Amino acid sequence: MRKSNFSAGPAAMPEEVLVQLQVACFDWRGQGVSLLEMPHRATVAVDLLEETRQLFRALLNIPKQFQILFMHGGARAQFSAIPLNLLGISRKAAYLNTGVWSEAACQEAQRYGEIDRVTGLDPDSALSRIAESQSWQLPPESTYVHYCDNETVSGLEFSRPPQIDGAPLVADMSSNILSKPIDWRLFGAVYAGMQKNMGVAGLSVLVVREDLLDQAMSVTPSFLHYKTQVKCRSAYNTLPLFNVYAALLMCQWLDKQGGVEAIQLVNQRKAAKVYALIDQYPAFYRNRVDKRCRSVMNMPFALPNQALEAAFVTDARQRGLINLEGHGSVGGLRASLYNPISEHAVDLLVSCMETFARQHQEYL
Amino acid sequence: MRKSNFSAGPAAMPEEVLVQLQVACFDWRGQGVSLLEMPHRATVAVDLLEETRQLFRALLNIPKQFQILFMHGGARAQFSAIPLNLLGISRKAAYLNTGVWSEAACQEAQRYGEIDRVTGLDPDSALSRIAESQSWQLPPESTYVHYCDNETVSGLEFSRPPQIDGAPLVADMSSNILSKPIDWRLFGAVYAGMQKNMGVAGLSVLVVREDLLDQAMSVTPSFLHYKTQVKCRSAYNTLPLFNVYAALLMCQWLDKQGGVEAIQLVNQRKAAKVYALIDQYPAFYRNRVDKRCRSVMNMPFALPNQALEAAFVTDARQRGLINLEGHGSVGGLRASLYNPISEHAVDLLVSCMETFARQHQEYL
Repeated sequence: MRKSNFSAGPAAMPEEVLVQLQVACFDWRGQGVSLLEMPHRATVAVDLLEETRQLFRALLNIPKQFQILFMHGGARAQFSAIPLNLLGISRKAAYLNTGVWSEAACQEAQRYGEIDRVTGLDPDSALSRIAESQSWQLPPESTYVHYCDNETVSGLEFSRPPQIDGAPLVADMSSNILSKPIDWRLFGAVYAGMQKNMGVAGLSVLVVREDLLDQAMSVTPSFLHYKTQVKCRSAYNTLPLFNVYAALLMCQWLDKQGGVEAIQLVNQRKAAKVYALIDQYPAFYRNRVDKRCRSVMNMPFALPNQALEAAFVTDARQRGLINLEGHGSVGGLRASLYNPISEHAVDLLVSCMETFARQHQEYL
Repeated sequence: MRKSNFSAGPAAMPEEVLVQLQVACFDWRGQGVSLLEMPHRATVAVDLLEETRQLFRALLNIPKQFQILFMHGGARAQFSAIPLNLLGISRKAAYLNTGVWSEAACQEAQRYGEIDRVTGLDPDSALSRIAESQSWQLPPESTYVHYCDNETVSGLEFSRPPQIDGAPLVADMSSNILSKPIDWRLFGAVYAGMQKNMGVAGLSVLVVREDLLDQAMSVTPSFLHYKTQVKCRSAYNTLPLFNVYAALLMCQWLDKQGGVEAIQLVNQRKAAKVYALIDQYPAFYRNRVDKRCRSVMNMPFALPNQALEAAFVTDARQRGLINLEGHGSVGGLRASLYNPISEHAVDLLVSCMETFARQHQEYL
């Protein structure tokens, strides 16, 4: 029986997408071969790539001055590729740090240029809180300002992009791309590993303003070189078509749900249910993030002790709810409610949490 | 109906592997989630990686001083990663050039060091022929000597590795890995994109001698940094488990066929059938490679004119034989007979070629 999968990534996918991928595994669109066996330069393959790009562009309203690339590797590959391609002659950029992933991106960028690491959290807040943008010490000569729109480990999300002047934003949206609209006027580039809201592991998607592509460093590996990949329409090297097709199916599924504006409302409703339950039992379920920047995608919570957390995981598993363990670096518990997680699955989770809390009256 | 797929890559896979991948797409090993939805740090995921590594090691008899890495990107990613990781302090290496792919690897390496481009073909031969190793001008101070063991475009293969003294060999075996045994005493590293004999597009496999891993250049992207990936057992970043599982299934399938020694005999028999037919009609089917270095994997051949080649492709397609077009850069025709291509499919191809030739008596 299918489980309700609250994994932070690779993450749950809609059953109808999985079924279509199963078909493609054996015979793709009546071609008599599996999509896995299809040469990447076949006409049907090139058409698939274009179809995926167009739907993705339409869903996020991406203006035409932005190029869309599908590239090998996940967000970690982009952690290197972004500075290699975009640091420019000054080799200077600012990285806003709000948690594990923005910090990892910053550390990688420091290998390629002079990076200003800007603290993005409010040091005076007991709960994790994104500081007011006026308080950030952003150096004026930055080529770009990098930030992570949703920190999956701590469960902290920007409710709107950082408000800065001058340099374009570059955002890691690995864990919340396609969960809400994007105001492209603020951005130079947005990238995401595709294994959460957009498909399966192995590829990243990059949306980049075309005028930024002329200053790649000479040591940029060719397969990570944005301008080269733009010229080749993402096919400089052998792109895994199966992953591209998974992205197309995820986009088609989202389109049927009404698109990003519609799914945003659903996502907010799902998240509100879990946070309401957490707030109903504050002595039992603890979430350390200020309400204004709680993530709509990932909800970490801790119980009074590790034994209780282990008991919760076991109890949830018996109800068919899995992958609720927190990130290895911080422990605790975490529910990830990406686009494909149904409201029904969320109701099951909330019911499980409520029952479990009531079974432990001594802590309430 | 399933077609006989002679694609140069991504290439044909055994039906039993595809069926198992279909199952994994929906529910993997009874876990209640698709393998595509499985967190990459789950115990079952880590076990899968280890199981794949062990079987691959056993099949190719890889000594324990070699590390095995599964990495994002195909051979093109390794074209960059090899020099970044292995050029060492001297930044010098020799690249033996025998065709399109060794040339591409050489050009990428030239961006990172002082590369000696060594002509590997015999300039005095009318047919493409690998020169005697004594004739190569190999600079003595090379950190390694790179070559491509099988050139898929021209259909030229080393019947045994280059015989050189001193520096270790680094080989691109993207198109013939697992098709024959490897004498590891000669090698510092062997790499391959996995979409031919070893699985599906998106990953490469790297086998590298551990003592060579201490001199990566500082600009090496972390996800391409061999030593980092060795420390993380290939899981520094999110590895696509589906691709790893495809590799495991391909290895298990090969194991059932009797392993690399057994498949080598089958491969030689398959190739001999096609070359025999070509040689039977030398005025009609032309192959430009010296018999001593004809590829066992890829057989390019040209017909007297392009109209005939187009007619051949159409005729073959009607018999269910597809992807016989040559590489875009050279035209002509090409049959790729990787491990999964059955002898029956080869018989169908040979029969098709024979009938087609006899239908064009005016050229014979």
